Amino acid sequence: MNNQEVNGKMELHIKGLIAAPYAPFKEDGSLNLPIIDLYVDHLVDEGVFSVFVNGSTGEGVSMNVEERKKVAEKWVEAGRNKLTAVIVHVGAHSIQDVKELARHAATIGATAIAAMPTTFFKPSTEVRVASYLAEIASSAPTLPLYYYHINALTGVNISVERLFEVIDNEVNVPTFRGVKFTSPDLLDYGRCIAYGKYDVMYGLDEQLLPALSLGAETFVGSTYNYAGKLYNGIIEDYNNGDMVAARQGQFKSHAFIKVLLKHTRTGVDFCSITKALMVLCGVDVGPARTPMNNMSKGQILQLKHDLQEVGFFEWK
Amino acid sequence: MNNQEVNGKMELHIKGLIAAPYAPFKEDGSLNLPIIDLYVDHLVDEGVFSVFVNGSTGEGVSMNVEERKKVAEKWVEAGRNKLTAVIVHVGAHSIQDVKELARHAATIGATAIAAMPTTFFKPSTEVRVASYLAEIASSAPTLPLYYYHINALTGVNISVERLFEVIDNEVNVPTFRGVKFTSPDLLDYGRCIAYGKYDVMYGLDEQLLPALSLGAETFVGSTYNYAGKLYNGIIEDYNNGDMVAARQGQFKSHAFIKVLLKHTRTGVDFCSITKALMVLCGVDVGPARTPMNNMSKGQILQLKHDLQEVGFFEWK
Amino acid sequence: MNNQEVNGKMELHIKGLIAAPYAPFKEDGSLNLPIIDLYVDHLVDEGVFSVFVNGSTGEGVSMNVEERKKVAEKWVEAGRNKLTAVIVHVGAHSIQDVKELARHAATIGATAIAAMPTTFFKPSTEVRVASYLAEIASSAPTLPLYYYHINALTGVNISVERLFEVIDNEVNVPTFRGVKFTSPDLLDYGRCIAYGKYDVMYGLDEQLLPALSLGAETFVGSTYNYAGKLYNGIIEDYNNGDMVAARQGQFKSHAFIKVLLKHTRTGVDFCSITKALMVLCGVDVGPARTPMNNMSKGQILQLKHDLQEVGFFEWK
Amino acid sequence: MNNQEVNGKMELHIKGLIAAPYAPFKEDGSLNLPIIDLYVDHLVDEGVFSVFVNGSTGEGVSMNVEERKKVAEKWVEAGRNKLTAVIVHVGAHSIQDVKELARHAATIGATAIAAMPTTFFKPSTEVRVASYLAEIASSAPTLPLYYYHINALTGVNISVERLFEVIDNEVNVPTFRGVKFTSPDLLDYGRCIAYGKYDVMYGLDEQLLPALSLGAETFVGSTYNYAGKLYNGIIEDYNNGDMVAARQGQFKSHAFIKVLLKHTRTGVDFCSITKALMVLCGVDVGPARTPMNNMSKGQILQLKHDLQEVGFFEWK
Repeated sequence: MNNQEVNGKMELHIKGLIAAPYAPFKEDGSLNLPIIDLYVDHLVDEGVFSVFVNGSTGEGVSMNVEERKKVAEKWVEAGRNKLTAVIVHVGAHSIQDVKELARHAATIGATAIAAMPTTFFKPSTEVRVASYLAEIASSAPTLPLYYYHINALTGVNISVERLFEVIDNEVNVPTFRGVKFTSPDLLDYGRCIAYGKYDVMYGLDEQLLPALSLGAETFVGSTYNYAGKLYNGIIEDYNNGDMVAARQGQFKSHAFIKVLLKHTRTGVDFCSITKALMVLCGVDVGPARTPMNNMSKGQILQLKHDLQEVGFFEWK
Repeated sequence: MNNQEVNGKMELHIKGLIAAPYAPFKEDGSLNLPIIDLYVDHLVDEGVFSVFVNGSTGEGVSMNVEERKKVAEKWVEAGRNKLTAVIVHVGAHSIQDVKELARHAATIGATAIAAMPTTFFKPSTEVRVASYLAEIASSAPTLPLYYYHINALTGVNISVERLFEVIDNEVNVPTFRGVKFTSPDLLDYGRCIAYGKYDVMYGLDEQLLPALSLGAETFVGSTYNYAGKLYNGIIEDYNNGDMVAARQGQFKSHAFIKVLLKHTRTGVDFCSITKALMVLCGVDVGPARTPMNNMSKGQILQLKHDLQEVGFFEWK
Repeated sequence: MNNQEVNGKMELHIKGLIAAPYAPFKEDGSLNLPIIDLYVDHLVDEGVFSVFVNGSTGEGVSMNVEERKKVAEKWVEAGRNKLTAVIVHVGAHSIQDVKELARHAATIGATAIAAMPTTFFKPSTEVRVASYLAEIASSAPTLPLYYYHINALTGVNISVERLFEVIDNEVNVPTFRGVKFTSPDLLDYGRCIAYGKYDVMYGLDEQLLPALSLGAETFVGSTYNYAGKLYNGIIEDYNNGDMVAARQGQFKSHAFIKVLLKHTRTGVDFCSITKALMVLCGVDVGPARTPMNNMSKGQILQLKHDLQEVGFFEWK
Repeated sequence: MNNQEVNGKMELHIKGLIAAPYAPFKEDGSLNLPIIDLYVDHLVDEGVFSVFVNGSTGEGVSMNVEERKKVAEKWVEAGRNKLTAVIVHVGAHSIQDVKELARHAATIGATAIAAMPTTFFKPSTEVRVASYLAEIASSAPTLPLYYYHINALTGVNISVERLFEVIDNEVNVPTFRGVKFTSPDLLDYGRCIAYGKYDVMYGLDEQLLPALSLGAETFVGSTYNYAGKLYNGIIEDYNNGDMVAARQGQFKSHAFIKVLLKHTRTGVDFCSITKALMVLCGVDVGPARTPMNNMSKGQILQLKHDLQEVGFFEWK
């Protein structure tokens, strides 16, 4: 993996698409680890070589600590010699669980760890988030650490640029490497890019091209699980200076995401809808776990039909 | 304890004040279980004979599963022959953890269990909350189960009256006994009281008297930890028909709660401020755990001074 | 009217129910002033002797300045010798309009004026709200002025207790007499009552009894338009110390308000539903104006049926 | 002006930057119309040839109807032979006022009108917004009409793409020409661009480049009042395929906007801070009107200093 210590400082440069894989469940809700081998091959086939495991798409917090460890281990093992980076998300309600997961990630050879803030009791300022990250870092002093900024879901509405400043000037977080930035606030995002020092992986697939225009180089998302080729095409078009083609690619992404969002109006969770889509794409990740609900067979047929109508299965 | 099976149906009638005890931590953040013996005696002295353990005041989700079990066990043990009811909160991110905590509560002889909904992924309708409760109930089929409604913190904005209807007509939750209702929505609250069938424990200490006026009989809160006598006085005045005295009691409660809220403007969490107050009242529950911060010694002195000024130490 | 100057200070003590009357429109949306004569008699018959004109129930901001003046004038004229108080709401986007409406209210002999804060650009602190009120007061130096606190609709989330303190210590508002307090925050409400100096009219009809328990004496609301007898009964029961009867009255209020809220799920505005109810009760206030929509005839029949089912037409 | 009727259909193609001018006030808060002549020349000098008058930057709703008419008239008159388009915002609380302003805009020769939805009572669906627009359109049947989508301020959270569909299929709005889209939701924005039929002017200056990447051609904003050259440079770089230079331009925009936002932490409104900046740039638009507050002289000096430090006065 591309993690190297240069002059005593960890260097990690992941570029391109990082998939946030789905949690692998059997119909009865128990873990289905073996499918991860297939999952890795599927991603490689999509042109996606890195993963962000046990995050929000991965239903990380819906599993208990033992399950999360098993899933992380399996991704590291199955990804050996096939994937570039396996980032393990360790965020949880209890700092005890977070530290245990961080230590575990180090022992299994994960590339890096990431953590969202606690979401019931919330660290409300940049200083408090930095202190929280410092506590995590102390449990895995050799692993690069990323902050997972997804404020619409966590309710922790901090400025990431300010977090960088706090970490550089007030609260030392030795392993801090950057952020998974999942927010439409491209002012703060642009400031983070201009800051220069840290990785600022962008987390809204429907805004990949706008983020590219501001200098984004790394992208973490759920739709990269099944539409990696489409997004790799956008990046390639952009790099070739063909903005019209890049835009057409992003519009295709918009078209199928709109279909997915339309289906949420039936009361099914977005994650569950896209797990059904993942099954349609050949990787049987199973249903979403409580408290999420799942699509009926009829709804899945309708989903397939609606996606065909916008051309999804041709682009991907 | 007052839990009895009548004609095959669990009956549980807790009346009056239920304290939501603080998590007992040492300065280093580890558990300090022995102080719970003293804590029980303190509550009895305040006229409070029931507890709601490991809830939001109790920093339940900030502990890991093992810690939560130890705290619950200790409360059951220390409360034997002294407390009327020990309700154990089992809500967590992962349904696996929730079920394990529910099973454990049954084995240690807890009076009842309660659960808030999951708060990162959220069950968004009454039917989904009921299904979630049914899953929990199946793990502890002999224990009365309460829903913990605290929508401002969970973001699960359901109607509790409608939840009752769903449970009675659509989704069977055999052990369901009612709700800890922590919301200022007294329309929904009144409807729940008028519904008649379930316990509707009220959760906003600053509105105990308004809730009494609508027929509330049970109250769960954090300020009952250190001001039980004051609130028992309000209930007594109300029952004697002396509304003027009852109101004066509630206004005293407002006065010291305003002091506590004023101190949150310094950036310290409400829970941490009241843990400091609990220490001032003689029960050393220690600091709040990450992600919460804590008061400095100077801030605690100021808190004590401000509370003295409004007469807090005379009323309680 | 009961407005008297004592030692150079305006005194105004309105007690009991104050209706927030509906805007009187014809089917074509133009003003229907003559029905206000009938409206006054209807209110007197309900036992309601004061009105709060052109507020949110009265669609004040949906009319232009000339229309608002005409409605206010008509209420003062029709209410002469029949009503105790006609409070005119003068809140608007533009301070120029607000001042013009305030001056006009003084010339027509209104009892008092009230103003919500501006709601697009918002005064965000107590000091700024007080300064805003001072500007209004200067345009009508002889009229008592009330602040209209309805933060869920205005987004101006200030503490009313703190507003009182600011007005008494920092920003002079000579004619300030109190507040129409439309919020479920009974901590702030209790503090305002305990403050003692100002009128604190309560604005949530579904919480009249809880407010009574804290010492409320004046109530402004929309359901007093058609259920004044029911609420007067609650007040009477409360004053007689019969809390059980008072509670039953409030539960009746809850029952029909739940019916009204249920109908909002069809996508019709609450105000429009209750205007339809007002027509059913014999006062043809017409439809709600743009941007609000209105019920179909079929929906109105259903509403009548649902209200009959909960007994509404028997209580009122 | 570039408004032409082709086959009975109004055509209007504004390209490039549109400034949202500040309301021109004297120190005493009254209108200062003469400065608009200077203002036009200033904009032309910045390379900005169109204006969006009386919107949110223009404090439209803080003026009364007469004042709004005078400001609109003056912009049309002063802009003759100098500006390409004068779009007049006519949104207000009362539909009577809106219609009057729309009629007036037609009589004075405005290029187009725009309207935000009502913001106290809110049209909550796309169909209701479309109906509202239809009502406005009927008052000015010859003027192109734009919807002003600024949902963070209005609270009307509709999908603009869906609004287009409703207008094309359900609710006829003959003069509808598009939208001023002020939201970071670039999924909805991209869908509107892909829709093809309507103008979709982008309204977040700090995201001009991301919007460009999705095909935006028209931009309405407040910072174009004083930094038109900078933004025109970004557009030029983008059109030349020089993404690195375009990005550097956007980062400069971020830098000075961050300075402006930092100053809001002193409690002064963003609009007031930028009015002070406008004065520094040579156009004395005066203070912001109630309910907004204004900077002190010391604060203005600090603002100037902070802007100098990031290089603002060199770029613009």
